[in-house]
Amino acid sequence: MPDALIARFAAIVGDRNALRDADLMEAYLNEPRDMFHGRAALVLRPGNVAEVAAIMRLASETRTPIVPQGGNTGLVGGQSPRSPCEVLVSLSRLDRIRDVDPIGRTATVEAGVVLKRIQEAADEADLLFPLSLGSEGSCQIGGNLAANAGGTGVLAYGNTRDLCLGIEAVLASGEVLHGLRRLKKDNRGYDLRNLLIGSEGTLGIITAAVLKLFPKPAGREVAYVGLASPDAALTLLQAAERRAGSQLTAFELIPRLGLEFTLRHTIGSRDPLETPHPWYVLMEVSSGRSQGDARETLEGILESGFENHVVADAAIAKSLAEANAFWIMREELSWAQKPEGGSIKHDVSIPVACIPEFLAAADKAVLEAIPQARVIAFGHLGDGNIHYNVSQPVGADKDAFLARWHEISELVHGIVRDLDGSFSAEHGIGQLKRDELARTKEGVEIDLMRRLKAAFDPDNILNPGKLV
Amino acid sequence: MPDALIARFAAIVGDRNALRDADLMEAYLNEPRDMFHGRAALVLRPGNVAEVAAIMRLASETRTPIVPQGGNTGLVGGQSPRSPCEVLVSLSRLDRIRDVDPIGRTATVEAGVVLKRIQEAADEADLLFPLSLGSEGSCQIGGNLAANAGGTGVLAYGNTRDLCLGIEAVLASGEVLHGLRRLKKDNRGYDLRNLLIGSEGTLGIITAAVLKLFPKPAGREVAYVGLASPDAALTLLQAAERRAGSQLTAFELIPRLGLEFTLRHTIGSRDPLETPHPWYVLMEVSSGRSQGDARETLEGILESGFENHVVADAAIAKSLAEANAFWIMREELSWAQKPEGGSIKHDVSIPVACIPEFLAAADKAVLEAIPQARVIAFGHLGDGNIHYNVSQPVGADKDAFLARWHEISELVHGIVRDLDGSFSAEHGIGQLKRDELARTKEGVEIDLMRRLKAAFDPDNILNPGKLV
Repeated sequence: MPDALIARFAAIVGDRNALRDADLMEAYLNEPRDMFHGRAALVLRPGNVAEVAAIMRLASETRTPIVPQGGNTGLVGGQSPRSPCEVLVSLSRLDRIRDVDPIGRTATVEAGVVLKRIQEAADEADLLFPLSLGSEGSCQIGGNLAANAGGTGVLAYGNTRDLCLGIEAVLASGEVLHGLRRLKKDNRGYDLRNLLIGSEGTLGIITAAVLKLFPKPAGREVAYVGLASPDAALTLLQAAERRAGSQLTAFELIPRLGLEFTLRHTIGSRDPLETPHPWYVLMEVSSGRSQGDARETLEGILESGFENHVVADAAIAKSLAEANAFWIMREELSWAQKPEGGSIKHDVSIPVACIPEFLAAADKAVLEAIPQARVIAFGHLGDGNIHYNVSQPVGADKDAFLARWHEISELVHGIVRDLDGSFSAEHGIGQLKRDELARTKEGVEIDLMRRLKAAFDPDNILNPGKLV
Repeated sequence: MPDALIARFAAIVGDRNALRDADLMEAYLNEPRDMFHGRAALVLRPGNVAEVAAIMRLASETRTPIVPQGGNTGLVGGQSPRSPCEVLVSLSRLDRIRDVDPIGRTATVEAGVVLKRIQEAADEADLLFPLSLGSEGSCQIGGNLAANAGGTGVLAYGNTRDLCLGIEAVLASGEVLHGLRRLKKDNRGYDLRNLLIGSEGTLGIITAAVLKLFPKPAGREVAYVGLASPDAALTLLQAAERRAGSQLTAFELIPRLGLEFTLRHTIGSRDPLETPHPWYVLMEVSSGRSQGDARETLEGILESGFENHVVADAAIAKSLAEANAFWIMREELSWAQKPEGGSIKHDVSIPVACIPEFLAAADKAVLEAIPQARVIAFGHLGDGNIHYNVSQPVGADKDAFLARWHEISELVHGIVRDLDGSFSAEHGIGQLKRDELARTKEGVEIDLMRRLKAAFDPDNILNPGKLV
């Protein structure tokens, strides 16, 4: 990139916020899974929406590709720039919580606010922002919106899309879409908000959003449940939903091997149950009325589960500390796979009723291909969303194992396709799954997506090579 | 339209389902509010998606404008054809409920299924489909989706958009978008579903949908509450939401005058409270556990309302029949205005906290313009959605009154704009509000909408002259 152009970009944000030094750019170019090693001409750190708009005007004038980035925690390479001709725009400095409205129960936040800060701001107003992810301490709400992030709160509260009432975004031209509405109902024309949400920065750069907040539950109870099979977990889910309705706020599936990985690698972890079980469910019930009410509902679900021989064993957290410990056993699952060597990961969703069938078929196919592979299938059973991860056999060569990623993914995703499922439930498409999207989506859908992209970004300067 | 072209269209659906006779077309061309008197070359009644696709292929080849129609209950003229060059396509014969999945809790239905039939099919599976509107006995789900209909269930369950997991739609070209997915999470690319939902048939014709069903509440209790002011109603809403959370399944505002209209014109209606009150709220609480549980929650809300002098009087329905009678008092509000003469209607939404301010300002402006006008402001307080209707002064000339529609709307919508609200909360844009949308939306949004329209329908044959 010519120095003169770099200087023009730098002038918009000031030299201090235009990073060219490799050491300073490092944190923006590498990502946590170590799968994408980004390259960029420079990193810009605008401080407000006007600067983002000015960057896009210049980019539009000069046809410069722009890669927007939040907390750089994305798992599909959507936030990674791919060439020294690209400019990375970090939204981190747009980090103000502009407003919390306790009566309308909304928060208006800028794109760079870290998710955890929004949760805390809601909490201070005696409200709840239910989006909750493993990376919540570093991911930013702009990235959550761009990826339509999921997480553990989806069961009761929906995904990020469902938690957003309005957005502000900068378009490819540098124009600003002022859509920070706080309305629960607004039928004025096409749904531009939902189009930008989940578009991974390819249609516009989200700079701020109005988020829904919820009454904070008066009580919350967590149980760690041992079960014989995914079928048993599904039966328990049905019973729990019938009894608790939207008070069932989490229902996470965990396989025994996943628990063992955590016990092995997470300091301070311990098995919540006395004897091992093939499968576990982390179940949470919340109540708007009281702790006792949540407890009563949870106990009722478990009692009938015992009676029907669906539940083999269960522990209800006796304190907040123990509840947090149970949750850590769930959240550490992702990281506990790392010390076990290579891991081929999938983020699939299937109709909930088909999950036992999916797990059986996928295990069979994967173990035929790699007999000693260790399957860690875990996640959001209530959403039909399983992280079907395959750890390498003990002692196998990591690189040789990871070289089979495509082959194994084809097997797993083929079964997902047969069950009318999705190979991207909550992580998005980014670079990782772009070819697969083009290959597997029906032509008419891909064609519409390309027409949308061309309508919003005719010069293809917004996050090119991602998603579509 | 040339006879040869008419014959080609008729050949697709068969002569019996190609209506040209004025008497037979009548039911499709006139609509319930009597505001739009449609004109069309003919009415086609395709029997399946292949016929809809064939119609669109021919329309695309011959550039013939197509107006899709469901139950013809829309309130903004979106379903009304406007010229003898247009072909009306009724989806009424696509009326199969293809599937009800009690485990995944979904229903797959064709566009022409009447809403009430879907409610009943869910009920038979011991489930709930919560979309509920005054016109539910005749409106069709395809129209509900095209308009993103609201209704009384939005507070707890969301609008039609929130109740839909997947759609099948025929595009302008005649291609079929096969998107009947039953997934709770699917991040494979742009959100085409939400773009088509609410697009009023201008981007594609929805032919089928996968709908979310919910566990049927074990108990439901309804109260009719008398209050002094909208401020009191808002305070009660806050308390009810805090206590009942998503178990608060309705919170409808009714003014005294609206109740009086109903008492006057609806046979068998009676005032649920002993003395008159300036305002009323119809409040419903549901429980997944039991009738007693719903009762306890509702009583708790009312007791604290009495203690805090927010509630002046309240009656809890003593039987299902009485609960239904309370609901009829709400649902008859729309029709009870008709015998009172002309009514200038608005469907606005504002941030919930601003509703008392909105009502005060709008009343002042309207009564300054027409001193004896009778304001009936009612509706979904919990959603911030008020049907701000203005009935003519007693004895005034109806036509002269209705001639002031635009003037009065300008006043009301101006106040809505000042409060960052929407002049179309749940009824859509159609013909009625198209010019206002173009005039009041920011240029960048209208421009994006037009680009979307051009990307989906380059020849402008899908419901031209509506929405954008």
